[in-house]
Amino acid sequence: MKPAVAIVEPKTPGNIGTIARAMKNFGLDDLKLVNPPEFGRDSEAYGFAGQAREDVLPNYDEVTFDELVENYHTVGMTATTNEDASHHVRFPFTTPRELAENLETVATDTVLIFGREANGLTNEELSRIDEVCSIPASASYPALNLGQAATVTLYELRTLTVDECQLPDVERERAAESEIEGFYGAFSALLDTVGQPTEKRDKNMRMVRRLFGRAHPTGREIATLRGIVRRANERASSNARRTNRDDT
Amino acid sequence: MKPAVAIVEPKTPGNIGTIARAMKNFGLDDLKLVNPPEFGRDSEAYGFAGQAREDVLPNYDEVTFDELVENYHTVGMTATTNEDASHHVRFPFTTPRELAENLETVATDTVLIFGREANGLTNEELSRIDEVCSIPASASYPALNLGQAATVTLYELRTLTVDECQLPDVERERAAESEIEGFYGAFSALLDTVGQPTEKRDKNMRMVRRLFGRAHPTGREIATLRGIVRRANERASSNARRTNRDDT
Repeated sequence: MKPAVAIVEPKTPGNIGTIARAMKNFGLDDLKLVNPPEFGRDSEAYGFAGQAREDVLPNYDEVTFDELVENYHTVGMTATTNEDASHHVRFPFTTPRELAENLETVATDTVLIFGREANGLTNEELSRIDEVCSIPASASYPALNLGQAATVTLYELRTLTVDECQLPDVERERAAESEIEGFYGAFSALLDTVGQPTEKRDKNMRMVRRLFGRAHPTGREIATLRGIVRRANERASSNARRTNRDDT
Repeated sequence: MKPAVAIVEPKTPGNIGTIARAMKNFGLDDLKLVNPPEFGRDSEAYGFAGQAREDVLPNYDEVTFDELVENYHTVGMTATTNEDASHHVRFPFTTPRELAENLETVATDTVLIFGREANGLTNEELSRIDEVCSIPASASYPALNLGQAATVTLYELRTLTVDECQLPDVERERAAESEIEGFYGAFSALLDTVGQPTEKRDKNMRMVRRLFGRAHPTGREIATLRGIVRRANERASSNARRTNRDDT
């Protein structure tokens, strides 16, 4: 079940647009606003929403905080947690990544609640929500901008919410081991041709194997390299034969 | 070694400020701008930078793209990758999370390069950089706003760049197993007092164990609950004795 996203008393329409855009980027569509400012088609809300101006943003619901608490498993976002278990308002908390893992096995209507630009959710609001979530950041400046906090959170939830990712499946793109071995064979032959002594050749081949092992080459990369090495070997061999002829 | 962050020909000062803020949130400080617009203290660059207006933003360097290529391991960010290995400009790519893992074991000066708001980095620029990085997002709308893309990327690099995170170490906050077992003991005693039949009690205790096992309660939570259960048990016991007396 995809979570809904609620913003409590946002002041800046631009932030509403930014969050709507992040929602569309990461496959979410249900936007709830508690006491929002007025914003029209010519506002920064629409200006910052990208393609979400077509659907996520205009389809928002205006709701009350009470309605969220009554109808959802509520997750309140905060940059500032309590330090330890002696206070419960902002403790314990989950991180967005843990939240994604937890929600994966839970079938419930969940809403992520983001607070005001200046001071987030109040302690009174946080005391009424079910779960506190906080983005790990630098101790010296942990307060993300509202739109950025929402973007990071929705990014982490993408495993739950993105049906189809834009990136091709890279695992299928790695060259077959046999192709890579073929390349190593060609490379070894080249070393032979250029007259590298056997013990040095073994060392060189181990090095090459380590280098390509780390890089996980694609089939295309290995085929190209193998071709280059083979042609270099042919050229070097015929030159070597010519040199030998010249010597005789 | 903390990566530098470069923005190539940003148009909107607000985006520069947003990225500077994300840098400070995630422990980075070296901002490079290629052909930036003019922006002063009263611009949106400063308006959006939060506390980064004090250091990261005013300390930026203006550089050329050539200088980045010459002096750094360059990582180019793009929302659009090639589909397969038949094109090399945007393929293969890493994701920000993979990038963080890779950089953890590499000692080199790295720069993350973000492109223009409207169309990112050109193919010509991408062909000159060392590594391509792309944020997994929804296939139907993978293009994040520049500031949001940078925020997600820097968030993922935090394991390399954040010296001290604002969040307390929650692992130390879980209640000791002995405390939790003490609570189970008190709860079991309460079930006994309220007259739950043995076979039902075992079932109840298994359920309670599962519920609290998932929640990883803190010491404070368990101590509070154990106190409540103990008092409930005492009250129930004395009532039970009174009832017994009344019966006789």
